[in-house]
This record gives sequence, structure tokens and C-alpha cells, in this order.
Amino acid sequence: MFGRLPGRANSKQRSGSNTMALIVQKYGGTSMGSPERIKNVAKRVAKFRAQGHQVVVVVSAMSGETNRLIALTKELTTTPSPRELDVVLSTGEQVSIGLLALALQDIGVAAKSYTGAQVKILTDSAYSKARILGIDEAPIRADLDAGNVVVVAGFQGVDERGAITTLGRGGSDTTGVALAAALKADECQIYTDVDGVYTTDPRIVPEAKKLDTITFEEMLEMASLGSKVLQIRSVEFAGKYKVKLRVLSSFEEDGEGTLITVEESKKMEQPVISGIAFNRDEAKITVVGVPDQPGIAYQILGPVADANIDVDMIIQNVGRDGLADFSFTVGRGDLDKTVNVLDRVKAVIGATAVEADRNLCKVSVVGVGMHSHPGVAAKMFQTLSVEGINIRMISTSEIKISVVVEEKYLELAVRVLHKAFDLDLDRAA
Amino acid sequence: MFGRLPGRANSKQRSGSNTMALIVQKYGGTSMGSPERIKNVAKRVAKFRAQGHQVVVVVSAMSGETNRLIALTKELTTTPSPRELDVVLSTGEQVSIGLLALALQDIGVAAKSYTGAQVKILTDSAYSKARILGIDEAPIRADLDAGNVVVVAGFQGVDERGAITTLGRGGSDTTGVALAAALKADECQIYTDVDGVYTTDPRIVPEAKKLDTITFEEMLEMASLGSKVLQIRSVEFAGKYKVKLRVLSSFEEDGEGTLITVEESKKMEQPVISGIAFNRDEAKITVVGVPDQPGIAYQILGPVADANIDVDMIIQNVGRDGLADFSFTVGRGDLDKTVNVLDRVKAVIGATAVEADRNLCKVSVVGVGMHSHPGVAAKMFQTLSVEGINIRMISTSEIKISVVVEEKYLELAVRVLHKAFDLDLDRAA
Repeated sequence: MFGRLPGRANSKQRSGSNTMALIVQKYGGTSMGSPERIKNVAKRVAKFRAQGHQVVVVVSAMSGETNRLIALTKELTTTPSPRELDVVLSTGEQVSIGLLALALQDIGVAAKSYTGAQVKILTDSAYSKARILGIDEAPIRADLDAGNVVVVAGFQGVDERGAITTLGRGGSDTTGVALAAALKADECQIYTDVDGVYTTDPRIVPEAKKLDTITFEEMLEMASLGSKVLQIRSVEFAGKYKVKLRVLSSFEEDGEGTLITVEESKKMEQPVISGIAFNRDEAKITVVGVPDQPGIAYQILGPVADANIDVDMIIQNVGRDGLADFSFTVGRGDLDKTVNVLDRVKAVIGATAVEADRNLCKVSVVGVGMHSHPGVAAKMFQTLSVEGINIRMISTSEIKISVVVEEKYLELAVRVLHKAFDLDLDRAA
Repeated sequence: MFGRLPGRANSKQRSGSNTMALIVQKYGGTSMGSPERIKNVAKRVAKFRAQGHQVVVVVSAMSGETNRLIALTKELTTTPSPRELDVVLSTGEQVSIGLLALALQDIGVAAKSYTGAQVKILTDSAYSKARILGIDEAPIRADLDAGNVVVVAGFQGVDERGAITTLGRGGSDTTGVALAAALKADECQIYTDVDGVYTTDPRIVPEAKKLDTITFEEMLEMASLGSKVLQIRSVEFAGKYKVKLRVLSSFEEDGEGTLITVEESKKMEQPVISGIAFNRDEAKITVVGVPDQPGIAYQILGPVADANIDVDMIIQNVGRDGLADFSFTVGRGDLDKTVNVLDRVKAVIGATAVEADRNLCKVSVVGVGMHSHPGVAAKMFQTLSVEGINIRMISTSEIKISVVVEEKYLELAVRVLHKAFDLDLDRAA
């Protein structure tokens, strides 16, 4: 199968389809969900080995295991120390590496497992959300050269004092990309339960198409806008270290998934828009009647940041009376907390009211092509207008345009935009 | 509670009941079997801390967890590599240390957990049955001095190359004793589901009495003869390093358990016999008509040892015809394998037959007092004879006499011997 992986003309010239490659593969909890599925992972790894490639496999905990462990800790304390929580949670991936190594050995593939501490994946000491500082790749390379498949526990590392750390949920993707970067792997393959990145969520638009390639920048926008295929940190990491990243299905034999590329595609037929992303979980706050004077934005957003609330879009309109309305969006779960914070701020800054708007969503068109194609915004607004969808807020970047609309319009907006930007059409591969 | 631990005149003079002590406590899988039970362990540890003692806690995996993990591996392979099996199995204790540390912190007790690799407990590389080579006790001592309870994973260690090893089933007892030896702890307390060591199995003899003290030598004989209170290796270890070992119930508030002492009791009323041990799982092999010449024992037992079969008692009788009968006992599960081995040996050595006797058991009287009290053997044989119990084999050591009898007599033999040696009587504490 890997022979076909760099199957496009470009890549073939670069690495050749028959040369030995070093591949990092990451399998998530669903792919490792049962002994039967672990056997399937082992078979897939064996196929790559049989083709002569060196393989490093990063695995997550079996699906359900992390939740089971968290539930155990919750029966003991409501305020777990992050250090001890990480000691407990990291066992999930440790079980997985041992089991996959056993499954590989059972079908005649030499394999050796490593915990994060053993690799070692050095992190800071921010338990439960540690950052990787470095990886000692020498032992892995020696094992690979000795003919072993190396199986590494995702999601975990070790700090300078030898304490076990975890990278936070989804951290196994980051482990995979970091290992690929450290080993200068030819490709980092992320196996999931979807077969690639789609132009939008197929549950909303059945005509959604799988993308063969997407740029890192687009993928970052898609991920930050709610597309859950890849953890955003791992995409950033891959972009930074120029790791060739591919998303594939672990339940499909021969799919080529979606390749996340550093460069824009050289194809003539480059589409303007790569996908429609959305986020259902939006709420809007408006501080009404704010004096239009310097420092007001900080006076409002400072206390919000102090309360650890993430703010997304921000808009300020100045009226004719010298008073401004200051609006921003937050995650819906943070809305009540934000209103509480601002009720205290209101008197200090002399605002007249704090208004909350709960049932909103965000819909975005994403594509690196848009910076060379004027008129994307106009087309987007016109399309929504035809359907009578009122736009509440707008935010733009180099490669995306986002609008906030009432949540009830979410599916309709995604569908009409998907069609308007020709994403329903089959493209040449 | 610990104030009462060294509550006998002797010990009080030695250490004083109110001085701060360093205690190693080991809790098995049943004691750690649920969040509720883990909370109880935490409370017990807290009580010792409140008395000013320093406490190191060694824990096993939650009951059932090791079997669950083994079952997972069995679904993947019938011939697991011991290295990877240890990676999987060691997670059980790792979960336990994190959970107990969380439970302690939740009730306000500073606690810190360590895996075997973190301590570090250095072992050889004999996966699944590793031997402890050394312990780096300095970090533990620093944590204790800083006011922490230190929670250490039992059953596991790490070899020179950083690979995870396990000490074999029951290895947590050994971890506890080894830590107590390394830290020169004042006492190593093994918490189990029984409240101490008894004169015999109370399920067979309801009048069986708990022993306040027992010597290491007696404990070793009791353990090797089937009394399952303590793992035999940990008793050897404790004897070798003069660790004061106490067996206690984790489900009882104030029991003093049984103290396993290095020296014989100084009490006047020292009983001749401390207990009656037994082993149901015995089988006897007789090689009939062996030429009585040098080297025959080796010719018979060499191939048996090569087949990894443990031999217990060995007897050789020379008849008048210059031919000998050579008998020995093996575990019942090894009987068929042993017969197969000897059928091949038979022709080579010119024996006439190999006979197997499956339904046997071993009953032993154990006591350091017997070497200064003649007549123990005679009393034992007489007692069995009165009941019509035929003795098939006899073996003796300095502190025990064992007989092999038909299995159907096991309960009867234990009961009459228990009574004959006055073990039913209450003793002065």
C-alpha cells in the first residue's frame, strides 16, 4: 500500500515508490478498541514492514479506557493532583503498546514497546497538558536498524525529574508528529475512524467530498473551526517541522486519505475554497453604551482573560453619540461565567447594559485559493442573503471568512455554501 | 494503633512506643479492590502519619486487574514475550499508586507516588520473575523527610537498560520487604485479608489459634508447605536482611497480627510445635527395580530437572536382590509429564517399572521447639497410627517433620495432630 502512497508524479520523483522509507503511524483509541482491532492494526503494520519500510507506531489507549480511569479517580477525589492523575491516565497507553507489540510478535513481526519515559520524550512539568521539549531518537533508530517495529505510547512523556506527564487529550497525534520530526520520517500517518478530511461534515452535506490534499494553513483553520479530524496542536507542530502528514482510515484497506502539505498544490485546477467549517458552540456578548475612549477594550477583555475564558471574534461599533457597542464571542459553556464577570465590570466602565446571545453558530469558508480570487466574501454573503440568513458578525483572515448566524440556520448555511463554491463537484484526483 | 504495635515488654524497651518510626506497609489487591477500600487504606495510613510516623506504602494492582490484563494478552497471542507482558501487567500497580496518592491527598495527607522504574528498583532482566538487585532509597528518604507519604508500586522494577520488569505473582510482598531493608525501616507490615498466621487452616480445624509470633524459619516451612499468607521469597528476604515483618488484616481496626521474628521467643512457655501445615497437591513416583549403583539418582532426576519439574521428597530403598526402588514426590500437575520423562529413562537404566501414585497429600508439624524436645516424631506417628492412617513417606528437617499420606485422610490427620500437640489450647499472650 505504501508503494502507492507517494503516488502522485511530484512525490514519486522525490522519493521513488520502491525505496525504503521511515514511516510513523499513529492509531487512535477506536482503532485500538479491542483485541480484534489491535490484530488488524498489527496486520497493517506488517504489510508496511513486508514492503521493506521501517515503521514506528504511536498508539492511544483503548477506547473507553481513559474515561474508565478518570471515573476511578473521581470516586476518590474531586480535586485530583495533576501529577497523580497523569500517573493513572498514562497506564492506558502503556497497556496499548504492550498489546500491540504482542500482536505483532504473534504474526512474526519483531517489535519492541516504549513508554514515553523510556523513549524518552522529555516534556515540561505542566501535568495534564505538558509540552514536548525534546526526544531522544537514538535508541529508536537503533531498534529500527535492528529490524524492529518500534511501538511508542502516545499522549505521555516524562519531565526532567522523571515524573510522568501527559500531553492532554488528543496528545497522541502530537506524539506521532513529534517523533516523525525527530526521526525525520518520510511520512506521519494518522489513522482515524474517518477516511480523510472532507470539504465539510458529510452528516450535514451528503455530497461532501474527501480532499486528496489540504495545506497546513487550511487544516489549521478547519481544525480550529470545529473539524475534529486532527488535534490542532499536532497540525501546528507538523507545519513547523515540515512533517508530511496524512490522515487515513484504519478501517479501510487501500485508501490514500488526505495529505496535509506544506506547499500549495501546483495543480491548475486549484479550487478557490477547500472546505466549509463550522462551530455550533458559539455565544455572543455585547457590552452596550461603552464610552469610546482608549483602554476600554482592555478594561472589558482583561477580566475575561483573567477568568480563563477564551474569546474568539471581537467587534466594536462607534455610534453617533460617542458611545460604542463592544461585542465578542465565547464558547457557549463560558457564557454565564462571562456575563458574571462583565456585570461587575459594567459599573466601573459606565456601560449601560450587558447583553447575551446564546443560540448562535459560526460558519466559515476556508481556502488558500481565496487570496488570489477576489469576490469570495461577496459570493458568500449573497448566498446566505438569498436564503434569508441574517449575518450577525463577520471575521476574516488571509484564507478564511467566518460569519456568525443563528444556530437554526447552521445546516442550511453549510449546504448552500458547499454548493455555491462547487464543492459538490467531483474533482480530478 | 502503632503505639501498641511494639506493645510487648521486650520491644518496648528496645524502641519505645512513642518515638517516631519508619514503617513500610504493603496492601494487597483485595485491600485495594475498590475506590471505597482504597479510601480505607488511606485512612489507615493517615492514622499512622498522625502519630508522627513516616510511612512508605507498597500496593498491588486492584483485585481482578492483573487477570483482566492477562486475558487481554491471551486474546492476542498464546506465546507472549515476557518483556511485553511485563509492560502490560505493570500498569495494574501503576493505577493503584496514583489512586492511593489521590485518596491520601483528598484527606489532607501529602503523598507522592513512584513506579518501580522511578524509585528505582533495579532488577535483573528475567522478565516476569525478575530479582531485585538494588534500590535507590535516597529520593524516598528525601520525600519522607519533606513530610510525604511515599506510595510505591509493588511487583515491578526496571532493568539496567530501562526495560520494565515484574517480580512474579505475589512480588509486591517482596517489594515491601526489599524497601524496608533498603530504608532500614522499623517494621514492614503486610496487610492481607487474614488477621495473622494460624496454627493451621481454620477451615479444617475451627479451633486453630492465631500466633502472636512465629520465627522466620517456621514461617518459611509453613509457607513452603502450602500456607499462603506470605510469599515465600519475601520471607526469605526478610530473614536475610533482618526485617521485622508483621502480617495484619486490612479489614480489622486494631489487630496486632502475627510478628515474624528473627529470634526464638524468650518465653518460658515456648510451645514445641507452632503449627500444622499441609499440601494437598502431592503425587508420588516410584521407579521399581533400579540397579543399586552410583549415578542412578542422577540418571533418574537429571532428565526430570531438565524438564523443569520440581521434586520434593526423595527416598531410595535397597532390597536384598541388589535392586533398589527409587521414589520421589512432585506436584500433582507435573505427574503425567514426569511419567513420560521416566518412561524414556526406564530402558536406559534397566528399571522394571515406573509407578505413579496420584491421590496423596503431605502433612507437616512445624516448630523451632522440636530440636530441643525429643519424641515429636514418635508422637506424630503414634497419633496417626491410632487413627489408622498409613504413612507412605517421611521427611524431616531441623524444625519440621513431614509425612505423605492418602489424600482422603488430610483433614483427619491435621485435626488429630493439632489436638495432640496442644495447639487447640489458649496460650498466654
